[in-house]
Amino acid sequence: MSNSLIVQKYGGSSVANTERIKAVAKRVAGYSRRGHNLVVVVSALGDTTDDLLKLAGEITSAPNERELDMLISTGEQVSMALLAMALHKMGIDAISFTGAQVGILTDGSHTKAKIVDVSADRIRRELKKKKVVIVAGFQGIDPEHEITTLGRGGSDITAVALAKTLNAEVCEIYTDVEGVYTADPRVVKDAKKLSRISYEEMLELASLGAQVMQARSMEVAKKFSVPLHIRSSFTNKEGTIISKEVKAMEDVLVSGVTANRGEAKVTICSVPDRPGVAAVIFKRLAQSNINVDMIIQNISRTGYTDVSFTVPVAELARTKQVMNQIVKAVKAKGSIYNSDIAKISIVGVGMRSHSGVAAKLFDALASKKINVDMISTSEIKISCVINKKYSDKAVQAIHKAFDLGKK
Amino acid sequence: MSNSLIVQKYGGSSVANTERIKAVAKRVAGYSRRGHNLVVVVSALGDTTDDLLKLAGEITSAPNERELDMLISTGEQVSMALLAMALHKMGIDAISFTGAQVGILTDGSHTKAKIVDVSADRIRRELKKKKVVIVAGFQGIDPEHEITTLGRGGSDITAVALAKTLNAEVCEIYTDVEGVYTADPRVVKDAKKLSRISYEEMLELASLGAQVMQARSMEVAKKFSVPLHIRSSFTNKEGTIISKEVKAMEDVLVSGVTANRGEAKVTICSVPDRPGVAAVIFKRLAQSNINVDMIIQNISRTGYTDVSFTVPVAELARTKQVMNQIVKAVKAKGSIYNSDIAKISIVGVGMRSHSGVAAKLFDALASKKINVDMISTSEIKISCVINKKYSDKAVQAIHKAFDLGKK
Repeated sequence: MSNSLIVQKYGGSSVANTERIKAVAKRVAGYSRRGHNLVVVVSALGDTTDDLLKLAGEITSAPNERELDMLISTGEQVSMALLAMALHKMGIDAISFTGAQVGILTDGSHTKAKIVDVSADRIRRELKKKKVVIVAGFQGIDPEHEITTLGRGGSDITAVALAKTLNAEVCEIYTDVEGVYTADPRVVKDAKKLSRISYEEMLELASLGAQVMQARSMEVAKKFSVPLHIRSSFTNKEGTIISKEVKAMEDVLVSGVTANRGEAKVTICSVPDRPGVAAVIFKRLAQSNINVDMIIQNISRTGYTDVSFTVPVAELARTKQVMNQIVKAVKAKGSIYNSDIAKISIVGVGMRSHSGVAAKLFDALASKKINVDMISTSEIKISCVINKKYSDKAVQAIHKAFDLGKK
Repeated sequence: MSNSLIVQKYGGSSVANTERIKAVAKRVAGYSRRGHNLVVVVSALGDTTDDLLKLAGEITSAPNERELDMLISTGEQVSMALLAMALHKMGIDAISFTGAQVGILTDGSHTKAKIVDVSADRIRRELKKKKVVIVAGFQGIDPEHEITTLGRGGSDITAVALAKTLNAEVCEIYTDVEGVYTADPRVVKDAKKLSRISYEEMLELASLGAQVMQARSMEVAKKFSVPLHIRSSFTNKEGTIISKEVKAMEDVLVSGVTANRGEAKVTICSVPDRPGVAAVIFKRLAQSNINVDMIIQNISRTGYTDVSFTVPVAELARTKQVMNQIVKAVKAKGSIYNSDIAKISIVGVGMRSHSGVAAKLFDALASKKINVDMISTSEIKISCVINKKYSDKAVQAIHKAFDLGKK
């Protein structure tokens, strides 16, 4: 009998109804019977959180955030209790806890709290009694004993934080996809499931729209070197292990190709090119809570330059309002907008030690006559903005050029 | 500006949906604007508790009670948060709390916990800040920090306990009826709403099936002399005040007539009349968790006697099983059952100091040719069992005989 500790996290789709909860219980029971110590983190049932938000919406368009946390934290409490019952039914000793009960201590930022400490004493006590411990994801308690929630991807963060605190062997993230792929399998027929990927690569992929896991929880896992295993709750197949970079990873030039269609491009035209101008622009945008992604400014030969950046499409209307002020403030000529774009990116730690990756990428696009609009690079990523309508074609061409498909 | 403290409790039908929650908020806001300090106890939205129990039922027929409490305690948490939001929307400062957060300390009997202490420090602090304090009814926390629920009528108990701890002027129980009546208005056309009634009378009425409030919460109110006001959340009319017996109440001979059709009669025939026989019978029934109500045993002249008692109809099948053993154990001749009965009762503190009440009751029944099957009396109550089909007729006749109708 092994005594290893595994933290498992089941997302909303994995516990969407009582049938699925029973299926999760069966899987957990299997692990338990094979001698593993288990901490199971659950999200709310399927659409519960949305249903609760809808109720709040019927009351007010601007709900108080403390009360919103009171409201939506009930979702996980329902699923954890049901999972415990399902395990009991299978003869497995299990006990469920709210975030407050197991000491998930957070700051007081309601609806987007940060975990500041995890006591987990109660969990250790129950694990010693050989119980499966079920914990409500997404929630914690602040120093005033107020219930808080952790924001989007909050259950992942709960799982990672518990895996770190309890020194778990692995943190398994169960979702509705089988792992992380070299490209979106709906776009690229022979996209391959990656068996292993580094935190850094996964971070880039997460931020690029491969939404199997939020960047925020990945950051925490990376910080504390918590090994993650992204896998499906509908099969028994191995998924993708996310861990520290190992030597072998560098042999792989590119791990994956992604397309993000959720951004729009903004260009401020003919900005006088003097110190402090960029600061003015991006400070104003930050003050308006606009998330700027790529920023491009070319050298100027005339004393004037164009500054371009991308923002989420959902924030474009807000951006336009702020831009009017910015254009005046920096004495630019005007601004233009384009929401008809896609950002295509390749990610891979191998890029660090290999040259020619960018060239190969541009070649692949050129061979399909796809024009590149903006380019931005990091150590392990190259992104380019192209016309949205070529998005799938670009991903397919790049996937092929880097030979990422199944053999 | 008055500084009196009022505890208000809104039941499930009063907060059945967001429209009704808004209506409750409007009423609470009115009280708050008139200068009252307010603690508002809420039940779960309409059918929420039943919906949650249904989910549990889909998982297992015998859910663990600790997990059941985890599950169903979420219901009140949803309604309290929504009510807080609705009050904010009206410009009223309000804050909601779970039972755990305001220190409703209970024993560890999950699904039927008893309140052992109420700290309420957090409530006092928020009341000082002039906030309306909203508290989840029906729930508490045990010494192990486990979430508990208080069982049927639990929100009433929460309200009464808070009213006692905070020394409230009155505890208003909002429900879907306008108060306590001299008889069921559906049966007796001119049934009159009682403006005032004693705890003792209300206790008898509650136990007799006039289910505006559970006997258990009434007991607590009586013990601590918490004045109750039973009223409707759909009108502004005064309801019924329940308080300590005052002299004037004794002038009223009978406060109300009730009929309970939910019981069945069991008779054990020809029981040898020797000491200890009744003990054997009722100990066996108690061991099987059967709630025996009326018990009648007449004197025996032959050495044999018949023992009759009533049980809830829902427990009749179980009773029959136990009865076979009992009949053997006490060497009785057999047993007979009748679920075609109604228990008609009159209640009134005035009975204590007036004679002839029983005679008037039997007269009323005799005048309608209704046969009386069993009789049992207490200090402030007389009950008789009759054929179920005469139930309405009996109530109407008694109501008239005691002149209880509207003038």
